[in-house]
Amino acid sequence: MPKAKIILDVDTGVDDALAIYYALRHPDVDLVALTCVFGNTDVEIATANTLRILELAGHPEVPVAMGAGKSLLYPYTREADYVHGTNGLGEVALPEPAIAPVAEHAADLIIRLVKENPGEITLCPVGPMTNVGLALAKAPEIAPLIREIVVMGSTLQHPGIHGVARPMVDANIHNDPEAAHIMMCSGAPITLVGMDVTMQTLMSRDMMADITANGTPAGAKLMEIADFYVRSYEAMHPGISGCPLHDPLAVAVCHDPSLVTLETMRVDIELSGPLTRGQCIPDRRPMGLARANCKVATGVDKARFEALFHEVMRS
Amino acid sequence: MPKAKIILDVDTGVDDALAIYYALRHPDVDLVALTCVFGNTDVEIATANTLRILELAGHPEVPVAMGAGKSLLYPYTREADYVHGTNGLGEVALPEPAIAPVAEHAADLIIRLVKENPGEITLCPVGPMTNVGLALAKAPEIAPLIREIVVMGSTLQHPGIHGVARPMVDANIHNDPEAAHIMMCSGAPITLVGMDVTMQTLMSRDMMADITANGTPAGAKLMEIADFYVRSYEAMHPGISGCPLHDPLAVAVCHDPSLVTLETMRVDIELSGPLTRGQCIPDRRPMGLARANCKVATGVDKARFEALFHEVMRS
Repeated sequence: MPKAKIILDVDTGVDDALAIYYALRHPDVDLVALTCVFGNTDVEIATANTLRILELAGHPEVPVAMGAGKSLLYPYTREADYVHGTNGLGEVALPEPAIAPVAEHAADLIIRLVKENPGEITLCPVGPMTNVGLALAKAPEIAPLIREIVVMGSTLQHPGIHGVARPMVDANIHNDPEAAHIMMCSGAPITLVGMDVTMQTLMSRDMMADITANGTPAGAKLMEIADFYVRSYEAMHPGISGCPLHDPLAVAVCHDPSLVTLETMRVDIELSGPLTRGQCIPDRRPMGLARANCKVATGVDKARFEALFHEVMRS
Repeated sequence: MPKAKIILDVDTGVDDALAIYYALRHPDVDLVALTCVFGNTDVEIATANTLRILELAGHPEVPVAMGAGKSLLYPYTREADYVHGTNGLGEVALPEPAIAPVAEHAADLIIRLVKENPGEITLCPVGPMTNVGLALAKAPEIAPLIREIVVMGSTLQHPGIHGVARPMVDANIHNDPEAAHIMMCSGAPITLVGMDVTMQTLMSRDMMADITANGTPAGAKLMEIADFYVRSYEAMHPGISGCPLHDPLAVAVCHDPSLVTLETMRVDIELSGPLTRGQCIPDRRPMGLARANCKVATGVDKARFEALFHEVMRS
């Protein structure tokens, strides 16, 4: 099997850091670029953090492009410091990065790499879909050239994020519903890996202790970073003893879709409802199925994914 | 066990006719009144049909009140003739009714009977919730006096009705979202029996043939009426060979809630989203659960309900 050529679009962020490291370490993944966006934190911080994680992992050669600092329509307000820390990396100080981002805007890098590698690039946005939406709005002709867009986002069944009036929205679509809408209507092949499945996955405290004790120094440092994030989940979900693996699961699905159960359907993004702006609305009626635009992950092989993640992170 | 005192609010309608007959025949049900509303057909036709079914069943003593002919905000357009027939009873001609509705408006009858029987009335709207919404808006003080409102309406999982732009709405809330909103926010105890469960139930062709051959003349006439409705379902859902039992299941839950699995939650009605107006939005987050306003039927004992329905209709 050829390696999956992935552009990972990140708002680094603790679970983004785990996902980047996973992508760098998994033998089936060729991480061709990282593009950065606002979301978990400011885009400037997310970009610097992305460079820091590349250096920590010993892969300074991967190109990093900075992208959107706000959603298409509205200003950005940082709301996730209590989950990711004020520095986006759980208050753990990593050195200032020696490497720098490329000069190209994230959206332009996506457009260029997709055109240079027709049918080969898997685009994996694990933050708000603003860079992806910008790329598809600027160059709609890339849609059929993308191998797959594997999105960390959506929820059809699972309760949505806390602290917003809309009870069934995930953080990434919440942060830019219009960008998600552009993507969903682009004609590109899309797989939604959302809270329905990611909230079933767990990086347990036991797994973290083993990675710290028996993994690489970089792996141990990532566990130190993750501790803040895990504590925020333990406060939000009493008894969890660990944290879900949102972004890492999306990356894993890029190279192994068999980790999840996929249902083909039509999904549109509600843009205007006071209770529903940002909610994914499935249309499973016959006429909806005839207009299917994505596959939605409705189940996950939790045990296999967690064992895989554990192995890769410790390696 | 004392009989369940039920006010059944109907837009008769084929499955309303089945539900009325079921309520009249089941030994645990005391059908104290029928109130009529637009929905499957015009309210005038629905009212006349309700009287016809009472006469057919030999129960002309049950009071019938006419209510709303349109939703709270908008004019009514008849859209369900292809399901219920132009006369609402599958094009089967029943005699002009000899009995007449009471002079009281449906909403006033609901208010009066609830006040006269505090804590005893189960209100069962199986059409748009306009009469119920009017009653609760006019007399909010009745909310805590209602034993339970068992609603045929909502969908959380199942695809919604055909022919509308919003893919996850059921017909009854679709027909008056604002009335449903008034009800959901009234503080009355509410059980939602929606498409998630009713679409799992089936009146099979075999069951119909048995009721026709071995039941009463009234039962056989109802099967004749149901044939048109069944054919419309067979056209919409190839292979079904029968029809779901929407309204009868709601009535059965009034006297035996153990027929369904119930989950307590907060549900609000989206009123403004172009993709979601009329959709039930569950809030299963911790702060949503703290504001729970209903129980939602998430599963149904299909075999037990179908056997019960079969037995009651044939008796």
